[in-house]
Amino acid sequence: MSARPITFLSDYGVDDDFVGVCHAVIARIAPDARIVDIAHGIPRHDIRTGALMLRRTLRYAAPGVHIAVVDPEVGSERRGIALRCTEEDRVLVGPDNGLLWLAAQWFGGISEVADIGRSPMRLQPTHATFHGRDLFAPVAAQLALGAPIAEAGDLIEPALVEKLEMPLARLEADAVVAHAIGADRYGNVMLDVEHNELSSSGLLLGHPLRINDRDAVYATTFADVPAGALMLYQDAYETAAIAINRGSALEQMGLARDSEVWLRPV
Amino acid sequence: MSARPITFLSDYGVDDDFVGVCHAVIARIAPDARIVDIAHGIPRHDIRTGALMLRRTLRYAAPGVHIAVVDPEVGSERRGIALRCTEEDRVLVGPDNGLLWLAAQWFGGISEVADIGRSPMRLQPTHATFHGRDLFAPVAAQLALGAPIAEAGDLIEPALVEKLEMPLARLEADAVVAHAIGADRYGNVMLDVEHNELSSSGLLLGHPLRINDRDAVYATTFADVPAGALMLYQDAYETAAIAINRGSALEQMGLARDSEVWLRPV
Amino acid sequence: MSARPITFLSDYGVDDDFVGVCHAVIARIAPDARIVDIAHGIPRHDIRTGALMLRRTLRYAAPGVHIAVVDPEVGSERRGIALRCTEEDRVLVGPDNGLLWLAAQWFGGISEVADIGRSPMRLQPTHATFHGRDLFAPVAAQLALGAPIAEAGDLIEPALVEKLEMPLARLEADAVVAHAIGADRYGNVMLDVEHNELSSSGLLLGHPLRINDRDAVYATTFADVPAGALMLYQDAYETAAIAINRGSALEQMGLARDSEVWLRPV
Repeated sequence: MSARPITFLSDYGVDDDFVGVCHAVIARIAPDARIVDIAHGIPRHDIRTGALMLRRTLRYAAPGVHIAVVDPEVGSERRGIALRCTEEDRVLVGPDNGLLWLAAQWFGGISEVADIGRSPMRLQPTHATFHGRDLFAPVAAQLALGAPIAEAGDLIEPALVEKLEMPLARLEADAVVAHAIGADRYGNVMLDVEHNELSSSGLLLGHPLRINDRDAVYATTFADVPAGALMLYQDAYETAAIAINRGSALEQMGLARDSEVWLRPV
Repeated sequence: MSARPITFLSDYGVDDDFVGVCHAVIARIAPDARIVDIAHGIPRHDIRTGALMLRRTLRYAAPGVHIAVVDPEVGSERRGIALRCTEEDRVLVGPDNGLLWLAAQWFGGISEVADIGRSPMRLQPTHATFHGRDLFAPVAAQLALGAPIAEAGDLIEPALVEKLEMPLARLEADAVVAHAIGADRYGNVMLDVEHNELSSSGLLLGHPLRINDRDAVYATTFADVPAGALMLYQDAYETAAIAINRGSALEQMGLARDSEVWLRPV
Repeated sequence: MSARPITFLSDYGVDDDFVGVCHAVIARIAPDARIVDIAHGIPRHDIRTGALMLRRTLRYAAPGVHIAVVDPEVGSERRGIALRCTEEDRVLVGPDNGLLWLAAQWFGGISEVADIGRSPMRLQPTHATFHGRDLFAPVAAQLALGAPIAEAGDLIEPALVEKLEMPLARLEADAVVAHAIGADRYGNVMLDVEHNELSSSGLLLGHPLRINDRDAVYATTFADVPAGALMLYQDAYETAAIAINRGSALEQMGLARDSEVWLRPV
């Protein structure tokens, strides 16, 4: 296979034909390009969950072309873009609404970016409600075949690309105040704090702590605590997270997006 | 890859092994045939939704072999068929219950069709409850490898293929009376009326109208109306549709299959 | 393609990125290895449903490398293993918790097995909560490329592999007492009894019977009974099953895992 590999992440879900028809468009243009579906179950219009997942997962995929579509403003004046990351020659394609920002930073920032809204590679007519099919899929397929970004659209300044605002964990006298920045389908909740920030706050692996008003343990894995127990742990992407073994921390702790999560040594 | 590409649409869902084992059967026979899953979330036994989705999506896929399985009468006397469309050399494989009809018409009608119920290509024993795996998948794989339709079964008259009855929008003195013929997972509702039929009825893009008993706008895209607003628009497959921006028109308008949708200029 | 084909079954679901990132890892190591997703909708932590599905489906897939991940004890002392079956040169990769047992027996038992917990092929660091990505996917990819099992880990005795306990149907004076060992999304319920055991108990195809306290028919296919009727039948994997045509036998019969299902001739 000579085409570069493609990954695809979206909030399209798998019940309708949105994902399938994007695959069809790509396969028609680049019959030999392998497509890995990262996930299509991002909550609808949830740019931040998509951006976090993209940042977390792309390091596991071969360098290539990475399509991401979470696009509440499709059809508006928001830009569609294709950008090249500074490191690993990775190319990201999607709406310019912050979705691509965290992944681009992970790979060293943006070395080149094109506004592809009027790309010569787009399908015609380009429907205002389905840029995944008519714009992002065909552009990504051509880039996977080796087309340069400059041919995909009009080059713009990398500084113009939309950034993504994130909450920031803070240190109180006796606690780390983190935020619930995401959750998986098991109700495990991702926090905006790194493993090493925890230890410097007196939170030690294997020791008890309080999470909001509940007792918990800072554990290595689910098997370290009994069913129903609350735990703080480093998740599989090296981010701090909280979980209830065989339960849902999200529901049982009553957390929502950006809820404060107070972590206190005891 | 020398095998023709395959697409696959069904009501099997993605929780069970139905789709996976069909892929396994195809891959075993035709290891190089690429399979694009159009969608497997068709509501169970909903032939018409499957037929509409097939008609809408196949134009985006490369010509090849297109499997579709929505098959409430599997195991009965209904035929299984493989047919060649007049245009683009597309081959459709599935149950003969109307599911393939709209797509076949889109590609110019049927030039050749075989009853594959006793196809020499089928898996033996052929289980009466799973023709997707035992009949449609292996026949489609062989056709993708280049087998002629006449070898897949017994040729029959194209006129014998089951048609699909659809409701028909009508014109009243002051309204277009359309029908809710389908909906996606966002609750956007597809109507049985074309874009150009609307303008000839005094419904003009950018102007207000009444949809049943609610105010609405004939818009180009979701970004044209505020959240919660009802809109008429041309969907991404060039069919008229109604939607509530960031809501569900299906639920909030109380619509069901074939519900009348009155569109009145104001 | 020179890599052996891979199949993948899990309880990861398709909403999150678990499945996608495993695909990414495999595709990065073995870009030409085809992956067939058998299913990822196994109920969370339901080892037995996974084991049954694996046994039922693999016979339809080309011999190759078969990954299965239903892993409630991930991160504990349970082993991760790669094993070769005696027949067809099939290789199974997954947690050593009984999940692989039924499929291994189907293919003649285990000829060779390695403990891969510290495999040189694993990703580093290996996260205790995501062996699918860090252990099973990369090991399977290398095995698909032709690596011998002895290089994937430390060879152990096949007799050490975890077995899976299953209920056993029994014969009463006037009934076969089977168990509900699994169900699909339609509510069709799989029983632990074979087709030929039924006939030897006086249960004859085409004849009425009692299933627990309800009238039923021993039918060939759904089309043999009216909507709402209860039926006993041989399912598409040649196992006895019960279903309610266009309904859910699981719900309407009030069945749960291992519920007794009394089958009485009338």
